Amino acid sequence: MAGDVRTASRVIRRLEDEDKAIHRAIKHIFPHTGNAHVIGITGSPGAGKSTLTDQLIETFRDKGKTIGVLAVDPTSPFSGGAILGDRIRMLRHATDPGVFVRSLATRGSMGGLSKAVGEAIHVMDVMGKDIIIIETVGVGQQEVEIINHAHTVMVVQVPGMGDEVQAIKAGLMEIADIFIINKADRDGAGKLYQEIMNMLNMSDLSDGWRPPIVRVRSILQPKEFKESVKEIEKKIEDHRKHLFDTDLIQGRRRRKCTAEINEALLAAILEPVVSKLTSSGEFDRMVDKVMNKETDPYTMADEVALKYMKQVVSED
Amino acid sequence: MAGDVRTASRVIRRLEDEDKAIHRAIKHIFPHTGNAHVIGITGSPGAGKSTLTDQLIETFRDKGKTIGVLAVDPTSPFSGGAILGDRIRMLRHATDPGVFVRSLATRGSMGGLSKAVGEAIHVMDVMGKDIIIIETVGVGQQEVEIINHAHTVMVVQVPGMGDEVQAIKAGLMEIADIFIINKADRDGAGKLYQEIMNMLNMSDLSDGWRPPIVRVRSILQPKEFKESVKEIEKKIEDHRKHLFDTDLIQGRRRRKCTAEINEALLAAILEPVVSKLTSSGEFDRMVDKVMNKETDPYTMADEVALKYMKQVVSED
Repeated sequence: MAGDVRTASRVIRRLEDEDKAIHRAIKHIFPHTGNAHVIGITGSPGAGKSTLTDQLIETFRDKGKTIGVLAVDPTSPFSGGAILGDRIRMLRHATDPGVFVRSLATRGSMGGLSKAVGEAIHVMDVMGKDIIIIETVGVGQQEVEIINHAHTVMVVQVPGMGDEVQAIKAGLMEIADIFIINKADRDGAGKLYQEIMNMLNMSDLSDGWRPPIVRVRSILQPKEFKESVKEIEKKIEDHRKHLFDTDLIQGRRRRKCTAEINEALLAAILEPVVSKLTSSGEFDRMVDKVMNKETDPYTMADEVALKYMKQVVSED
Repeated sequence: MAGDVRTASRVIRRLEDEDKAIHRAIKHIFPHTGNAHVIGITGSPGAGKSTLTDQLIETFRDKGKTIGVLAVDPTSPFSGGAILGDRIRMLRHATDPGVFVRSLATRGSMGGLSKAVGEAIHVMDVMGKDIIIIETVGVGQQEVEIINHAHTVMVVQVPGMGDEVQAIKAGLMEIADIFIINKADRDGAGKLYQEIMNMLNMSDLSDGWRPPIVRVRSILQPKEFKESVKEIEKKIEDHRKHLFDTDLIQGRRRRKCTAEINEALLAAILEPVVSKLTSSGEFDRMVDKVMNKETDPYTMADEVALKYMKQVVSED
């Protein structure tokens, strides 16, 4: 809580290993959390999210705010590490004590990453960060779950992508509070703007917030680029104010809390079963039986589930 | 098992709702599964996977093989439907009884989609399809889990994408059996080819299979495009033969089976808890308590988990 970077780094690293001890640590700090404003930045690979985040850090710092950044890497479940490490571009903020940047990579399976994101936010929150930015690739279902941890969601898009991107956009449409058209000097930027406008015109905006669309010029024109990012910062502040003025902030907190409880239930119920089955060698025997067609996965899972629950209850 | 399309469509639609009755149906057909060769096609959004799949269908059909295609859409968890529907381009195969194309969209959460993929494969398998193609966007963790259901994994890439794509590529690298460079007439194709080659040169290829790299010309040159896809089909056949000649097929079956058991365990253990908590209104009360900081998500989850398990065991 004194804002110590090394302690926080260690805690976040251990979160990835889903250590029981860390659960206890989170229980301890939990009552002190809930002060930071959490911003989610998502969009397709190559949309330029890291560059925007880097400039946003500078903009927030100029206003005297402290920042935590959590870069979520869509990496392999096999290599088990953050391939990009702490994003290269943001290294220029490494010596600024008001900025704390960390990466989280895919670890384990079944929602573990999203859980680690929720926990890392708590750590940065009790460190006293005013703003926490979660940067993730918004494609799969898990990535949408990650973004549920944010109070303000920004969706970054670039002109000239294919059909499938349209579908992803449609999926992200429903969670976007601010749209960003990055590389807006490219061909197709006007078309993309119009498409988003059309979607917004058809959307239910009953919460009184019409997501603005910010066009960001190429980083090759540094002055215009910086101005665009200042506009983003202003829109984030507008959105934050709107959440508090209308009490919509409670809805966001509820969404965040729901995501966390789901992940905690997964950890409390499923993970002990799987780890017990794996360490006892029973999981391998289960795979053998299903491969030999002695049984099917569902019959097997039902039997094992009941057996395990009896065991846990009798141990209690 | 007589290959009836309407029955199979209905079964797959219901799989998405994770109906208990469907579990019973899968139990029934399970002993008859395991004959089809399952091919996974993955890659970034806009990489042209649907176009390749469409041409692959034609190529396989020319060889007299029957095909099932499962297009997995990375859609919103809110809209709950397949936005792209059954992919437009593949509609030309709609009247061919040897081709069965279906979409699966994000439904529910926590691994449900990957489970539905495994089940839909069984359905297509007992329909008698020789080849089953799973098409998915290879970015998030869940998408990698989906691809674990395949015997042969193809990773599609296009030249000229950004930094982040490199990381994704690195993640997919470990599961690729065949690399495809699509739109290989674009700038940067040579560089991409060289990067993949470099990665392959550093990789452990102890299973005796060096993933080939197939360069696919633009669909705007239909003749060259078709020739490229024929080459892909040949590589798939080479890989299938290699799996059987070396008995590596057992490893793939094991991976597939492990994925299915994990998903069945999730369904058997976690889903009943969540549905019970939701229908009784207890979940909402849990959220309230955590929001009011009366407790934290982990303490809450541990308590609820134990209470629930006691309940299930006493009902048994």
